[in-house]
Amino acid sequence: MIPGKITDGDGSRDKRNMRTSRVHCIFTCLEQRILMSSSTTPFEQTPLYPLINPRSIAFFGASNRFSAMGTNQLHSILSLGFKGNIYPVHPSEPTVLGLPAYRSAADLPEVPDLAVLVLPTAIVARSLEACGQKGIRHAIVVSGGFKEVGGEGIALERELVQIAARYDIRFVGPNCLGVVNPHHLFNVTFAAFEGRPGFIGMASQSGSLLTQMFRYLEQFHIGFSTGISVGNEAVVDIVDCLEYLAACPHTRVIGLYIESIRRGRAFIDTARRIAPHKPIVAYYAGGSEAGRRAAFSHTGAMAGPDRLYDGVFRQSGVIRAGSLTELFDFCWVLGRCAVPQSRRIAVLTHSGGPGAAAADACSRNGLALPPFSTLTAEKLTPLIPRTGSVNNPVDLTFTKEPLDYFRSIPAVLLEESGIDGLLVYCYMPPKNMQRMMESQGFSAEETDRLTQAVAEDLAKHTAALIRSNAKPCLGFTYQSPDMPIIAKLMEYGIPVLPSPERGARAMAALAGYGELMHKIGTIQEEA
Amino acid sequence: MIPGKITDGDGSRDKRNMRTSRVHCIFTCLEQRILMSSSTTPFEQTPLYPLINPRSIAFFGASNRFSAMGTNQLHSILSLGFKGNIYPVHPSEPTVLGLPAYRSAADLPEVPDLAVLVLPTAIVARSLEACGQKGIRHAIVVSGGFKEVGGEGIALERELVQIAARYDIRFVGPNCLGVVNPHHLFNVTFAAFEGRPGFIGMASQSGSLLTQMFRYLEQFHIGFSTGISVGNEAVVDIVDCLEYLAACPHTRVIGLYIESIRRGRAFIDTARRIAPHKPIVAYYAGGSEAGRRAAFSHTGAMAGPDRLYDGVFRQSGVIRAGSLTELFDFCWVLGRCAVPQSRRIAVLTHSGGPGAAAADACSRNGLALPPFSTLTAEKLTPLIPRTGSVNNPVDLTFTKEPLDYFRSIPAVLLEESGIDGLLVYCYMPPKNMQRMMESQGFSAEETDRLTQAVAEDLAKHTAALIRSNAKPCLGFTYQSPDMPIIAKLMEYGIPVLPSPERGARAMAALAGYGELMHKIGTIQEEA
Repeated sequence: MIPGKITDGDGSRDKRNMRTSRVHCIFTCLEQRILMSSSTTPFEQTPLYPLINPRSIAFFGASNRFSAMGTNQLHSILSLGFKGNIYPVHPSEPTVLGLPAYRSAADLPEVPDLAVLVLPTAIVARSLEACGQKGIRHAIVVSGGFKEVGGEGIALERELVQIAARYDIRFVGPNCLGVVNPHHLFNVTFAAFEGRPGFIGMASQSGSLLTQMFRYLEQFHIGFSTGISVGNEAVVDIVDCLEYLAACPHTRVIGLYIESIRRGRAFIDTARRIAPHKPIVAYYAGGSEAGRRAAFSHTGAMAGPDRLYDGVFRQSGVIRAGSLTELFDFCWVLGRCAVPQSRRIAVLTHSGGPGAAAADACSRNGLALPPFSTLTAEKLTPLIPRTGSVNNPVDLTFTKEPLDYFRSIPAVLLEESGIDGLLVYCYMPPKNMQRMMESQGFSAEETDRLTQAVAEDLAKHTAALIRSNAKPCLGFTYQSPDMPIIAKLMEYGIPVLPSPERGARAMAALAGYGELMHKIGTIQEEA
Repeated sequence: MIPGKITDGDGSRDKRNMRTSRVHCIFTCLEQRILMSSSTTPFEQTPLYPLINPRSIAFFGASNRFSAMGTNQLHSILSLGFKGNIYPVHPSEPTVLGLPAYRSAADLPEVPDLAVLVLPTAIVARSLEACGQKGIRHAIVVSGGFKEVGGEGIALERELVQIAARYDIRFVGPNCLGVVNPHHLFNVTFAAFEGRPGFIGMASQSGSLLTQMFRYLEQFHIGFSTGISVGNEAVVDIVDCLEYLAACPHTRVIGLYIESIRRGRAFIDTARRIAPHKPIVAYYAGGSEAGRRAAFSHTGAMAGPDRLYDGVFRQSGVIRAGSLTELFDFCWVLGRCAVPQSRRIAVLTHSGGPGAAAADACSRNGLALPPFSTLTAEKLTPLIPRTGSVNNPVDLTFTKEPLDYFRSIPAVLLEESGIDGLLVYCYMPPKNMQRMMESQGFSAEETDRLTQAVAEDLAKHTAALIRSNAKPCLGFTYQSPDMPIIAKLMEYGIPVLPSPERGARAMAALAGYGELMHKIGTIQEEA
């Protein structure tokens, strides 16, 4: 990799697929954005399709011992309920995890779509060659001990690439954790899948990061459409993954964990073509000296200076996240929300502290909280207690009527022409609701059921309001995502970020996406 | 309030209570820090003691209707199990929430320690006067409609202050949400208390913020020692609260939510005297234009420029938090951990992505990740898989033996003289542990029980290691705080921050506290 190479933006980019009409879609709501194709290749014909959606798998390296990595990975495939044929290959065991095993690739009863190799380094090449001879054209090489360890590993990896070229095998890895595609009930990673099929398509230079996000995303009622651990990128790299994820109909937004970009020019051209239709968010770990050293000992990647990557992302139309938390926050809101036409937003709260904190965070992230028009103030007045404020933030001081808070007031705010987005503080402590209901003679179970029903009703109304509107609306809270109102809002597709700062930064990312696309569009029109 | 006044640091501060010996305690571990008194007044004799630890309460403004704020607040007191006498005062109801009610203050059978007033604005003064006539000397005035609404409210508030002066009443408020002291089973806020008695003493210019943190802190197995919503600070202000919290034996660390400081000079002198013994962390909401406007409409406070407050905090030895989330993160680690002697730390991970992200976040927050000595590298080698790294971050790539990960390796790292703190990535998915155990024939219940037992055992060993060490150790994770290993570590007093960035910033805050105290100490010695 030559880090210097990726900045030579000389305007020689491929313009064949660029249409100015794309520019106009950026300010429309999400559904329209998704409807426009971001790839000219039909999904089923994309090069990685059989690798990520295999109908049948040969598995090398699983046994009946759970101390082995391969056994766990095969178990992951089985436990998610993969629908296709699975052929464990094992030199001595007659069955592996209850499946009939085969001595070698040559013995397999069909040519499977995919081979997964979780083998000791020394025998990977030989097994890959056997796969090629059998006619297998796609593989995932999980095994490590290649380029990332240096020395002899470099030669061993070169050998894999040569075999792949000889037999026309497209493989992910080596030194990766595999692929997860919950829409296809396919999870080849070490970790048991926990979560739901979602809309975040992710390519990651850290494999375990993907698996560690299964439960993390599930908390917020979101999930991966596809996750690809790219490992050493000997054959398939981040750019190939971008192409696949652009075509994938389940993917609304693309997330990248990057320690280094190997094909800079191709990355910029590809990302720039995709971004107007599917937002791309990237976290770059090698930006600081310590991060760079950590990345180097992790994948042997040579990271470039922070500013260089900043330029690459800007040129590519890629939103840069400052942390992994932010990477997923940004993917969440870009996958769920409309893009605001400006940075002018309103904040709604029933608590002064979180409201002031949100206002402060908005200011620090380049969002403006303009005053409302007289008309809006007039419409708000009857909905807000005397002790409250019809300024921006709107502060109710307490919630008299939850349906006003979650529906009538947001409706007024979203109608205000000077406002292009809304941040709503979300808090409704179940204990206080219980107290109110118990005082009216309800039993504990009835109270529980009612609390859920109220939350459901509010979330449904809020979601309907937001769907009918082209302006983004985000919630923010300090509470655990299992608080009923928060869980329900998220279930109905409204992102509720875990702090005002994260809410403000996510809103700023939405606005930033609009601006980036506008800029790219303008450059395209001029070119 | 005159914002300009608080920067005139002319060295005229009160030096009577300053001893250079205090400087030496800053690099010792927490227990020692707490043992040193930060107040010369015995706790029971502090002016706010009867207000925050009342033996008996007169309650004005509760009825039997749960739509009334006062009813909810009285219910909060009752439901937490307050041990003293409670006397509801109501003009017509014979009983309130099952307690005998009294027509007026004059009718009360004793002179209670405290009066709580949740009354319409117009009758607050009259009732406060009646309390004074009865001999009540402490009050909490929850009612709003005073200075914060301007106009006539200003005069009404002045009247309260005059009555208080006439009858020698010390009161918190008006326009506040009350006080919570879980150690005394005393919660006068609107929200039912959810959580545990803890070590964070908080004074807040947002009342509802306090109540909204009950559940938030409980997630992390921490809680308030005391929370005081100061409201308009007509009599009792943030500085008085600092004095109380300094003397409070349950309080290990003081948290402040600030929209404006009214007595700048007193704040600096008081905080500076307390901070070497009890860390003080502050979040200032008025730093940006929008934050300032929000704060103004919230409490009518005139916030000063951001830089001014930055200077005040620095002069006072107060750690500044950039957000409310950070305020509680910093309180958490300052209340739990030793202070590092330098900014050189080690990162331990079994996953490259989170490790690189942590290294990057450390770098960006002024922490150094130096290489280890040859001796340390030698000690680490047998504990780390061949595919792992004995560099800093130490990366195991996978956890072979959890007890090594949580005990043997941290022990080696904490022994390294070039390292003064440790950040450990925490992740142990229960589903994978279950798989392992089920493959060995354990039932689902046994597996559950074993998972908990393993987590308990690991946490116990880790806690013992850390207790015996003067260097801070923090965990970080992306998982929900209810994951067994994370819940157990927190239960045993080890903070596990919800992201590498928050872990790194919390570690930097610990180091920053040490540096601030060193600076204050040096200035004191020179003066």
